[in-house]
Amino acid sequence: MDKPLKILHASLNKRVMVELRGSRGFHGTLDGYDVPHMNLVLKGAEEIVNGETILKHNTVIVRGDNIIFVSP
Amino acid sequence: MDKPLKILHASLNKRVMVELRGSRGFHGTLDGYDVPHMNLVLKGAEEIVNGETILKHNTVIVRGDNIIFVSP
Amino acid sequence: MDKPLKILHASLNKRVMVELRGSRGFHGTLDGYDVPHMNLVLKGAEEIVNGETILKHNTVIVRGDNIIFVSP
Amino acid sequence: MDKPLKILHASLNKRVMVELRGSRGFHGTLDGYDVPHMNLVLKGAEEIVNGETILKHNTVIVRGDNIIFVSP
Amino acid sequence: MDKPLKILHASLNKRVMVELRGSRGFHGTLDGYDVPHMNLVLKGAEEIVNGETILKHNTVIVRGDNIIFVSP
Amino acid sequence: MDKPLKILHASLNKRVMVELRGSRGFHGTLDGYDVPHMNLVLKGAEEIVNGETILKHNTVIVRGDNIIFVSP
Amino acid sequence: MDKPLKILHASLNKRVMVELRGSRGFHGTLDGYDVPHMNLVLKGAEEIVNGETILKHNTVIVRGDNIIFVSP
Repeated sequence: MDKPLKILHASLNKRVMVELRGSRGFHGTLDGYDVPHMNLVLKGAEEIVNGETILKHNTVIVRGDNIIFVSP
Repeated sequence: MDKPLKILHASLNKRVMVELRGSRGFHGTLDGYDVPHMNLVLKGAEEIVNGETILKHNTVIVRGDNIIFVSP
Repeated sequence: MDKPLKILHASLNKRVMVELRGSRGFHGTLDGYDVPHMNLVLKGAEEIVNGETILKHNTVIVRGDNIIFVSP
Repeated sequence: MDKPLKILHASLNKRVMVELRGSRGFHGTLDGYDVPHMNLVLKGAEEIVNGETILKHNTVIVRGDNIIFVSP
Repeated sequence: MDKPLKILHASLNKRVMVELRGSRGFHGTLDGYDVPHMNLVLKGAEEIVNGETILKHNTVIVRGDNIIFVSP
Repeated sequence: MDKPLKILHASLNKRVMVELRGSRGFHGTLDGYDVPHMNLVLKGAEEIVNGETILKHNTVIVRGDNIIFVSP
Repeated sequence: MDKPLKILHASLNKRVMVELRGSRGFHGTLDGYDVPHMNLVLKGAEEIVNGETILKHNTVIVRGDNIIFVSP
């Protein structure tokens, strides 16, 4: 398994920070992902826009397309 | 089935929030989707631009390309 | 047949609203489409820019790439 | 043959209006196209930027990537 | 051979105008191209930014991705 | 092995500078990568926005899509 | 071998100018490339932003995605 995928897999059920294009991001618990799109499922996720939490989501499916980085 | 798809599938016939690029989004009942594009069909959908509901749609086909996240 | 395609197919010969990137859209009668690009053919189409009808087209081929949503 | 392609084919040797991203467009005689890129060849084409004709081209190859719509 | 490619091929060793995204372009002699990317090689090429020649290149490889049109 | 990949491989366990679109970058130790996406894993990574370090990450998965260059 | 690739290959170990999207570029010695991405390796590379050299890199891997042109 490639290293990026391995790190993502090891982050399951842990809190991650996901930075997206457009000054948006999420802090949440990684519940799942798919390959090769890197779409993510986050639980208990805070949606952050321009550095401020604007909304909390029980569950959110984030499209991989817009992801800049994932920080476990 | 991958987790993102599984969560999407479990959201059928439930209200979801769909955030799109360009400060646009929809609140509506998920009526269907396709794979791998993640094009969605929403029923009873409110179209939201810059935080305000500007239009209601009985049915709308949303192209997956522009989706940032789906929140069930 | 996937649901998004099924809804598109059921909209043939009906008026649809097509929202495109760049504050542009069309109101017209759906005359055809292709798969998987979702290029559309509209008849009797009004081209709308920033909310105003600027031109009428007997026929127009709209590339799927730029479509945000189709509302039957 | 899919409908969008059929309409494009029926427009050969006729005047078409091509709208591109970036406030640019062409009016010209459709001389050819390819599939699936939808690259076009126009003859006797006026190049239009922000609504004004800025140049005339005997022949121009337009990349399909940038096309928003083609209006026969 | 598709028409766009045929016109490109017939332009070999002739002066062409290449318009790129981002208000940039080239005037030069078409020395070669590839398929399907439409990367071009131009000889004796003037690089034009915002309508002014800013640099001359003996040879330049232009990536097809950024091309809006080629005018022979 | 192609040269770009060879250089990337030789940079494993060394400090690299990664420039991303959107005035963002990372300085960190290259811990892994995948092919062909060029997704990277960096350890001990400083996140740099507009020339200033704004955050330190123990580990970060950087999507290849947004990378402009990697400087070992 | 296609002409663009042939010219790139003939530029190995020679100084090239690489123009990227976002007002950025490099002057450096071409040390390698890959196909079909056109990722490049440059040695002794000056990074140029808005016309000024801001940094020198011993080695840099430039992703092909962002390249507008390569001038040998």
